[in-house]
Formats: sequence, structure tokens, C-alpha cells
Amino acid sequence: MADPIEFHFDFISPYALPGLVAMERVAEKHGRTIEMHPMMLGIAVVKAMGLPPLLDTPLKGDYLLMDVPRAYRFHGVPFRPAVPKFMTSPLIPARLFCWMLSIDRPRAQQAARAMLAAHWSEGSDVSKLENAVPHAVAAGFDEAEARAAPDDPAVKDMLKEAATRSVERGIFGSPTFFIDGEQFWGSDRTHIIDRWLETGGW
Amino acid sequence: MADPIEFHFDFISPYALPGLVAMERVAEKHGRTIEMHPMMLGIAVVKAMGLPPLLDTPLKGDYLLMDVPRAYRFHGVPFRPAVPKFMTSPLIPARLFCWMLSIDRPRAQQAARAMLAAHWSEGSDVSKLENAVPHAVAAGFDEAEARAAPDDPAVKDMLKEAATRSVERGIFGSPTFFIDGEQFWGSDRTHIIDRWLETGGW
Repeated sequence: MADPIEFHFDFISPYALPGLVAMERVAEKHGRTIEMHPMMLGIAVVKAMGLPPLLDTPLKGDYLLMDVPRAYRFHGVPFRPAVPKFMTSPLIPARLFCWMLSIDRPRAQQAARAMLAAHWSEGSDVSKLENAVPHAVAAGFDEAEARAAPDDPAVKDMLKEAATRSVERGIFGSPTFFIDGEQFWGSDRTHIIDRWLETGGW
Repeated sequence: MADPIEFHFDFISPYALPGLVAMERVAEKHGRTIEMHPMMLGIAVVKAMGLPPLLDTPLKGDYLLMDVPRAYRFHGVPFRPAVPKFMTSPLIPARLFCWMLSIDRPRAQQAARAMLAAHWSEGSDVSKLENAVPHAVAAGFDEAEARAAPDDPAVKDMLKEAATRSVERGIFGSPTFFIDGEQFWGSDRTHIIDRWLETGGW
């Protein structure tokens, strides 16, 4: 059984969902599974790299606002973001995801994917607890526990630790993929990963 | 006759050459020509965007050192950079290119492409005048004039103006492509441009 493809993402990243959808197609083609991992752009980009948030970066911010909808159309993913200009806090869905991961990975991934799709394709702001929790419940988690998880100091620590670990591994962008230890950054590189899997690398 | 594809690049950018080679294939397929334009990362990234140079950016610098050779191999372009860690000044080849463009575009592009290939695939440091000038001469430019061009204040102004114009157009990365006014950043997006040309956009 081949190792899963690692998919590292921040819920706040507009490129996470199209990257995931594109990678699902590539993974299926090669009989691989996807292992989702939380990372935090706020820690990687702003703290570790010392850079401003992308949307606040001159030139790149404007490009992003144009490029993101085009990327969704390219990958055939509906683009209906919950928040204009994409700005929202990823803390609630990211902590919820960490908490669910500590219980059951397959169901946690199901809920995380549903939250990404809800936020970016269905206009439902999952940075709000009341919009995030139903996806955990739909994946079989307890509603009261899910509601409490994002405020639990132990859960907060899980996310902090995950973010720190990802920086230690050199992850700075969302999405980032690892294929058998090889790192690829960017939602538009899945065709390269496809060839990597096909050829065994180069 | 369809408009040419604009290719904006900095000689200092390791992704310029593989981006050009990949785009040449796409352009040929669609019966388009390529129009090369100088831009300056030092002005766009460092001055306009207020960011550090890529290689000096934590995490991203290390990724770049790994990703660049892989990108060359992906595109089938030999990778033998003239300078370890890629660092060199683009001023001599960029000014030479501007001067040549003011005289004859096709021959200027021929020489610019040759300088890119020499620097990144053939280990010849074209940031040095003696290594850059022969490519101008091979494209039919006068040797004495070519040697003098990079020090000519009028030529220096040409490059400054080109760099300023490119920032005004929102160009911040190398390579950047424009297809019928549509902007695409990155050497690894030529497959997207290919589909754009095939479908007429989306």
C-alpha cells in the first residue's frame, strides 16, 4: 500500500479547496489516499517568514483577487466565498479539525472538506461556530463536544503544535503537498505531482 | 494575426528560462509569437511590495533551492547556473536587452534568450559584460556599441522606465505572461495558459 499524499492547508486560504479537489483526482488516478493536515498562514507567513498577509501585499493582493476566481473556474469548483475579500479567521474550523483528528481521522477529514466547501463554494462562513459545528455533527461527532472544542485550551494547543510542526517541516504556503517526502507548494502544481507519481520522480 | 504572448522576466530569476521554454512550446502550438519584456524583481518585490528577496525569505528560500532544479528537470531544460545560489546582478544583461530592443526587437530577443540560456543552462555568468556582449554580437549588434550600452545613462533610463511600467501594470513576479490582456504569474502555469488559448478563456 503506497503512502498517502499529505495535504497541508489553512481554512483561510482560497487555494486550499481547488487544490484539494485537483489532488483528489490525481490521488484517485494513482490509487493514493489523501491525509489532510492543518497549517496556519498567520504563523508561517506572518511570524516565521516576516511577511505581510498576501492580500495586504501591494500588487500581489490585486493579482490574487483576480487569480482566485479564475483558479476555481479552471478546476471546475464553484466559487462563492462566504466573506468578501476572503478575510476570516481560521481558528474555529482549524481547532475543530484538530479536535476531530484526535478522535477519528477519516471522519475529521470528511468534516474538514465539508467546511472548506461550505466556506468557499457555498457562501457559509465557517469561521462562525454555528456554521462550522453542523459539519462535525454530520460526520458523526457529538454536537455539545464540538461546540466546546474550539475554546478548550488543550485543543488550542493542538493547533499551535500542528502549526509549529508544519513550519519546522518548511511548510509556508497553502496548499502544500508531500508525495513520498517530496514537497510541492501550490494548487496549480497538481499536474506536476501527477507526472511525479506516474514516473516515480525525476 | 493573433496578438503575441507577453513574457515579462528578470535575468536574475531562475524560473525565467524554464518558463520561456515551456511557453515557446505552447505559443508554437497555438500559432502565437512571444514578446519579451524586461522587469526587475529588485524594484517590484523589494521596493514596490516591500518584501525581502526570495532567497532571503525564511522557509521559501530553502524551498526555492530545491524547487528550481526540479522545475528545470520537469521542463527538460539543463540546469547549470553560473553562480551558486543564483545570486547575480541582472543590470548588465537587462540594460543590454533594453538597448537592443530600442534597435531591433527580433534580434534583441534572440540575444536575450541566448543570455538566459548561457547563464542558467551553460554556467556562463552574463552579469559580467565580457560574457554578455558576445550574445549581442552573435545577434548582429555592434560589439563596441554593445560594450558601451550598459554604462550609457540613456540606456539605464530605458531599464528604469521599463521596470516602472511593469510595476504600474501590476507585474510582481518573474516570469509573468499576458495573453490578450490576461495576466498569469509563474513558470508552472503554462498548462493553464495552454487551455486558455485552446478555449478562449473562462
